[in-house]
Amino acid sequence: MTTVLDPRDLRFFLYELLEVEQLTTRPRFAEQGREVYDAVLETAQAVAEAHYLPNRKRNDQEEPTVVDGRVVTQPDLKPAFHATAEAGIIASTHDAERGGLQLPHVVASAAIAWLEAANIGSASYPMLTAGAANLIAAFGSEEQKARWLPPMLEGRFGGTMALTEPDAGSGLADLRTIAIPQPDGTYRIEGAKIWISAGEHELTENIVHLVLARIVGAPAGTKGISLFIVPKRLVGADGRSGEPNHIALGGLIHKMGWRGTTSTLLNFGERGPCVGELVGEPHRGLAYMFHMMNEARIGVGRAGAAMSTAAYRSAVEYARQRRQGRLPAEKDPTKPPVPIIAHADVRRMLLIGKCAAEGSMALVLACARLVDDETTAPDEAARREATVLLEFLTPIAKSWPAIYGQEGISNALQTMGGYGYAREYDVEQLYRDNRLNQIHEGTNGIQALDLLGRKVMQDQGAALTAFASRVAQAVAEARTVGLDGHADALASALGRMVEVTRGLARGLMQDPTRGLANASVYLDLASRVVYAWLWLRQATVAARALAAGATGDEARFYQAKVAAARFYFGFELPKNAPDADLLERNDAAALEFDAEWF
Amino acid sequence: MTTVLDPRDLRFFLYELLEVEQLTTRPRFAEQGREVYDAVLETAQAVAEAHYLPNRKRNDQEEPTVVDGRVVTQPDLKPAFHATAEAGIIASTHDAERGGLQLPHVVASAAIAWLEAANIGSASYPMLTAGAANLIAAFGSEEQKARWLPPMLEGRFGGTMALTEPDAGSGLADLRTIAIPQPDGTYRIEGAKIWISAGEHELTENIVHLVLARIVGAPAGTKGISLFIVPKRLVGADGRSGEPNHIALGGLIHKMGWRGTTSTLLNFGERGPCVGELVGEPHRGLAYMFHMMNEARIGVGRAGAAMSTAAYRSAVEYARQRRQGRLPAEKDPTKPPVPIIAHADVRRMLLIGKCAAEGSMALVLACARLVDDETTAPDEAARREATVLLEFLTPIAKSWPAIYGQEGISNALQTMGGYGYAREYDVEQLYRDNRLNQIHEGTNGIQALDLLGRKVMQDQGAALTAFASRVAQAVAEARTVGLDGHADALASALGRMVEVTRGLARGLMQDPTRGLANASVYLDLASRVVYAWLWLRQATVAARALAAGATGDEARFYQAKVAAARFYFGFELPKNAPDADLLERNDAAALEFDAEWF
Repeated sequence: MTTVLDPRDLRFFLYELLEVEQLTTRPRFAEQGREVYDAVLETAQAVAEAHYLPNRKRNDQEEPTVVDGRVVTQPDLKPAFHATAEAGIIASTHDAERGGLQLPHVVASAAIAWLEAANIGSASYPMLTAGAANLIAAFGSEEQKARWLPPMLEGRFGGTMALTEPDAGSGLADLRTIAIPQPDGTYRIEGAKIWISAGEHELTENIVHLVLARIVGAPAGTKGISLFIVPKRLVGADGRSGEPNHIALGGLIHKMGWRGTTSTLLNFGERGPCVGELVGEPHRGLAYMFHMMNEARIGVGRAGAAMSTAAYRSAVEYARQRRQGRLPAEKDPTKPPVPIIAHADVRRMLLIGKCAAEGSMALVLACARLVDDETTAPDEAARREATVLLEFLTPIAKSWPAIYGQEGISNALQTMGGYGYAREYDVEQLYRDNRLNQIHEGTNGIQALDLLGRKVMQDQGAALTAFASRVAQAVAEARTVGLDGHADALASALGRMVEVTRGLARGLMQDPTRGLANASVYLDLASRVVYAWLWLRQATVAARALAAGATGDEARFYQAKVAAARFYFGFELPKNAPDADLLERNDAAALEFDAEWF
Repeated sequence: MTTVLDPRDLRFFLYELLEVEQLTTRPRFAEQGREVYDAVLETAQAVAEAHYLPNRKRNDQEEPTVVDGRVVTQPDLKPAFHATAEAGIIASTHDAERGGLQLPHVVASAAIAWLEAANIGSASYPMLTAGAANLIAAFGSEEQKARWLPPMLEGRFGGTMALTEPDAGSGLADLRTIAIPQPDGTYRIEGAKIWISAGEHELTENIVHLVLARIVGAPAGTKGISLFIVPKRLVGADGRSGEPNHIALGGLIHKMGWRGTTSTLLNFGERGPCVGELVGEPHRGLAYMFHMMNEARIGVGRAGAAMSTAAYRSAVEYARQRRQGRLPAEKDPTKPPVPIIAHADVRRMLLIGKCAAEGSMALVLACARLVDDETTAPDEAARREATVLLEFLTPIAKSWPAIYGQEGISNALQTMGGYGYAREYDVEQLYRDNRLNQIHEGTNGIQALDLLGRKVMQDQGAALTAFASRVAQAVAEARTVGLDGHADALASALGRMVEVTRGLARGLMQDPTRGLANASVYLDLASRVVYAWLWLRQATVAARALAAGATGDEARFYQAKVAAARFYFGFELPKNAPDADLLERNDAAALEFDAEWF
């Protein structure tokens, strides 16, 4: 059986495309090297194959249930969680002095992708814990860090992110959960949160909820929101988890996929005082949460990249083995049927899968690399450029591995025909699981508004300038290896995108509602350009390796990259033309469709 | 709660768009009229609401199981099946003298859509029975008709279509099931069939399998296939079901959706003689089966249209009630959130749903109307034109309600955010159920080959000529009501399609494998033109009604049609441009991607 990810491809992304070894010249990573990173990846693969992959189906079939008010999860989840913590994966990017591996984010991301490709319903527990721990590490007081981080990084405590409320959804400005200051400096938290993943379980002795709430008397809207640490069980001075805090499980939500992860409705302070600790300063909670949110958004993208890779690889394996039909030129019915991978349409479907999966993985790892640059690049200008670029790429990395990745998974399912649709195989589960990635941590529509309304507009278009400079570099490099056709296509697609953006910017000032009406179309357009950039870069690196004399499997690996880029530039990027036309006239057909007409 | 279909829209399709009342001038329908058809639709809605809709979730949750070798289905299925039979729906298009309602196919289709929108997992049992009965009515001997039709039309016997084999899938040429002639004129059937929907259940006293098999000694390939009636239980001269025939249940397949319908592996003649009756002449089975298959293909399209309509209507209802966020121009966070239907992006998503759902329903009902014309139009030329047009539209009607419809359902799910993804709501099930429609009765890829390799190529392009003449008529009519922009766009899209088809035809003769390599892209291109034609026609009819002075709800209904057409022409049809470019150069990037590179 094929592996859920391709180790060769991960090495390509890390060492060839993203030149991760360069990071070891920086003080934070000075004691590391490629052998360390290879070992991390191998460990992650081993954990994934021992604790995640065998339980993927079971996790889907045996959903968490509530028994006597307690959540019972399937028994494989707990050992998976603890094996992950023991392998250092929760703490992978944390400082060595706090027990972390101090790895670059880009390496840690590649490792985590193994777990997500193998079994997302299990992987979410450690990943949410890591996210919550990262937030405390970034904004908690020294005391909070000392108290909460060690048990979270060791996997004794879990973590969650509790933002959404039943009546607010994506509208964080309308949060109603309140925090009432207490004489001892703590707060009483009162309110309900919904869709809280991993919000209740018994994998860990405690769960640290990071909760957004409004301190009584705070301003309305997003400016009056603060962030709180709200543990499931109160923790004494000795660090032990004691009495339950007043957080009541209001119910479990049953999802189409991602079924191993509890999705909860939590009521804070409904039947007694629920104690929370303020993180950082009052009213700055949303800014803090966005720190975690940005990381979570790239994490959602990574999960999408991982799941689409797993689906693509299953479909390839199937298509090599399954014999059916003959090529159109073959008229003799006594000739044996061919493996379906010989059919042009099957190759087309698999290439959509490959372009989506590998393009997405390149994107999310490039984002993780920018997180490393943002924090460890030697000069201020490079750090600033990384931040600007990362801000631009984040909504795309969040949404397109989910959108384009879902197209890839759908094509994997289609390649397998009825077998793809059967629960006896794994692809239909990936199709259900990955669909969530277009929704949680901000829907596609929210990402589109973030991209067009904020990211490409702010700082006189600094984001597009930074991106354009990366594209120019990629275009120039591609020309040195003879990829001129693709280079021209990318340069021209970027040019069109810049033009379209300018036009939208002018409209936005006059009428923001009209200006943002087609933000989702803009997200698609920008995403196709970003993927074209990454496919051109992959093809360039591969063409160089071929020119340098790669042979055998290595040559095939690189030829595949070059040929997949050809497919991307022939079949996918051209879809931008009608989108650009639509955005140029900023078609108002949807905006002006009266609500009463539906 | 909203209904799963919109009765007003069905009346629009039948009486305004497809002018069904004209059919009553034909002898077969002479005793019918609009009041009969309205009553049929109301009955179907009542059956759907009483027996189908209440069990949709249950049908999904309580899958058929095997207990002591027998298939146990959830208990609501049986009363639903019999209520459907009693309402005359299985027999709806059959001759009155055989106990049928002798309805036009177009009316019967609209009625059946109610069941499919409400609960596809239940609806498949009567629909498969109807399909098998129709095939016997078309090709069976008088004796076979007398013996098998009455119990099937009354709902005492079920029916199936048993084509696919484990090793052959879509490759019918490789069928291995054999039929051994017996002295008494019957045949012994030996072989395995897979994915047989409704292949085993206890809703009826008997099940009539229509099985494709090769008579021993028959030629290889598709030319040696014959069709057999193979009952689950042998039927004596008295018409009673007696001893079991030797058909063993090899297992149930568990699908992502459509869970209420058993999907079976059946072994014929494995443990004893399995008796079959030849239908029609030997070796002509595939031609007969294609008769049923063509009907089944339009049926799959109708199911897709029905399910996307149900999803669209759920999402609209949700979007009207759910309040969240503010319009971009609103900066005051103390203003109440707006219903999400006010957001441009939500309208965009709903419009995709509306264009897909109503465009698909218009298409499948137009096809059903052509079936009526094919059999009852007064002159030979009109019947012939109907056949040609129907052949062209069938692969599109099979696949695009599944493809574009799935996009619509996905947007309905997305509109509802986390709620859309939760099994507590209905849209996620529709998303899972409808996904099958891209697979069964011939995958998208098979439909694409049928369209490009056969339908538009045969008879010197007669199909495209017939379609072009319908388009020209629609364009001319649209100009009379001021829809010149859309009319121009459709004319130009058709022109481009004709050009592209000519280019592909030239290539196909030289190299069929290359020529058909991008058949799926061609299917998309042709489908968008067909939907544009139907949307232009809908808008034209609506614009006329508005000009004639429609007011109130009626005016809103027609305005919605005109405005949805605007959306379709602005957002959807332009996607043809890059597809046409690709097909013009007949891009070989997928075909030339080496199998070893995946």
